[in-house]
Amino acid sequence: MASVLIVYYSRSGNTKAMAGSVAQGAEEAGAQVTVKKVSEASPDDLIAADAVIFGSPTYYGLPAPKLLDFIEKSVRYHGRLEGKVGGAFASSANVGGGNETTVIALIQALLIHGFIVQGNPSGDHYGPVSVGKPDARVEGQCRELGSRVAKLASRLKT
Amino acid sequence: MASVLIVYYSRSGNTKAMAGSVAQGAEEAGAQVTVKKVSEASPDDLIAADAVIFGSPTYYGLPAPKLLDFIEKSVRYHGRLEGKVGGAFASSANVGGGNETTVIALIQALLIHGFIVQGNPSGDHYGPVSVGKPDARVEGQCRELGSRVAKLASRLKT
Amino acid sequence: MASVLIVYYSRSGNTKAMAGSVAQGAEEAGAQVTVKKVSEASPDDLIAADAVIFGSPTYYGLPAPKLLDFIEKSVRYHGRLEGKVGGAFASSANVGGGNETTVIALIQALLIHGFIVQGNPSGDHYGPVSVGKPDARVEGQCRELGSRVAKLASRLKT
Amino acid sequence: MASVLIVYYSRSGNTKAMAGSVAQGAEEAGAQVTVKKVSEASPDDLIAADAVIFGSPTYYGLPAPKLLDFIEKSVRYHGRLEGKVGGAFASSANVGGGNETTVIALIQALLIHGFIVQGNPSGDHYGPVSVGKPDARVEGQCRELGSRVAKLASRLKT
Repeated sequence: MASVLIVYYSRSGNTKAMAGSVAQGAEEAGAQVTVKKVSEASPDDLIAADAVIFGSPTYYGLPAPKLLDFIEKSVRYHGRLEGKVGGAFASSANVGGGNETTVIALIQALLIHGFIVQGNPSGDHYGPVSVGKPDARVEGQCRELGSRVAKLASRLKT
Repeated sequence: MASVLIVYYSRSGNTKAMAGSVAQGAEEAGAQVTVKKVSEASPDDLIAADAVIFGSPTYYGLPAPKLLDFIEKSVRYHGRLEGKVGGAFASSANVGGGNETTVIALIQALLIHGFIVQGNPSGDHYGPVSVGKPDARVEGQCRELGSRVAKLASRLKT
Repeated sequence: MASVLIVYYSRSGNTKAMAGSVAQGAEEAGAQVTVKKVSEASPDDLIAADAVIFGSPTYYGLPAPKLLDFIEKSVRYHGRLEGKVGGAFASSANVGGGNETTVIALIQALLIHGFIVQGNPSGDHYGPVSVGKPDARVEGQCRELGSRVAKLASRLKT
Repeated sequence: MASVLIVYYSRSGNTKAMAGSVAQGAEEAGAQVTVKKVSEASPDDLIAADAVIFGSPTYYGLPAPKLLDFIEKSVRYHGRLEGKVGGAFASSANVGGGNETTVIALIQALLIHGFIVQGNPSGDHYGPVSVGKPDARVEGQCRELGSRVAKLASRLKT
């Protein structure tokens, strides 16, 4: 059984709701899931997890500084996270408002840590994006991400 | 009066429709506008224009190869396009389907030619994106891009 | 034993040389390796491979149109490549000349196909980049990419 | 005479040295230049400047959280910075270590504020990048950025 850690920052609650759907998808796929606000997460948590998924609103086309601050602090474990599975999701106020670039930014950070990231050939390819409050489509994409990451982490664990 | 060239590739007609709205916005702002399918455009056309706007559907998160082929051929004028005004727009099948990364890819190409690119603080920040057939929101964003580019080119021309 | 396909485009020979080093690394890791110029590759080749690595020079911050044309043609197998392992490398004329954005563009395309991509915590994080002719550093990074992709494909095959 | 504000974050001193070269280039082009560490800058400073240039080391492929925190705080002036000239530069430990993606991330943030950004057809296209301590090549690229931004801001001011 793979362990999946979801670390998110949320102000309006939209990203938090997405985190909940991602968690549900990962649990349904058989993972042991932990969901943490970034203010309650420690870089130590990354070591214990088989997979890590980051979620953030879009601030000027990029993840929230508080989440990036957490990622910067994780440098103390640089190299030790190699081979874990990663994923990302984002919310924004508008279509074309920077949510894809936010997801790509998080994927770049994961790749630099040596994480393994899988895309999705249908729907939101890089990771789920919500324009405003998550609707049924976004919820489905989020569950799909959780499931995809959990299954890949499980395959790689054995 | 600034001259604005719009070069696009379109298969379904969605990007072509966006090009029409961009042209309308540029004309309303007082520019002399030329709209060309990429198959009918020549890199020579770039030399004559004060501003160039590229439009493309999203193929695997990137602009259509036919448009990139045109941009590659424009290397013969590398350096001579410096200081012109540029802009970009894209269409895709889905939200999160790569249209932002397509617009950013076109902006990167424009910057490498030395173009001057302005973002939009409201709406589609990097450039207009349409998910499927352009609706009234997208049409407005496209007119806005045309107007923005035309006005900046006009200011820089004097 | 995992099969690794390397598809590249090269004009000056720099990207071809990188492809050779990537192939060497994959072979040393025990993979069965095929190296093809994009002009000799068919999208059918992608189906047979357990892993695919794309290499390209940097044209206006993006991969060569001929390689993107190949990727566009691979749409006929969209969804069927899901779960394969992917990687990318690029060459450019200058530091800051767009080779990172070229590698990221190829990774985006791989993710949209549903590929699994791993970053490298040391050296060239997203994938190897060469400024001009590959030197010993670049050769090492390329072998590392080949080895990394081959090992991950092998783990996922069993 | 245009006013150019340079805001940077630096830990090792490499980005600070780049900021100095950018300032020199802007001054030589006739601008009135202010250079501030991000810890000493206020979003209010952005209002007064005709042009703003951001510089940062590369942390996980992205700008330093402290600089992004500053940019997030600038949201109070969202819309009021539209039409100013912008630019970006970055330092990193390695080639392929994320400095291009850091510059692109800063350009994205600038575009979302409505800034006007120009690329450089020779050298470091998106903005200067230094691998380790800035050498003569990097110093030249930095002066070039300062000069380019100052001249464009001056043209747009009249």
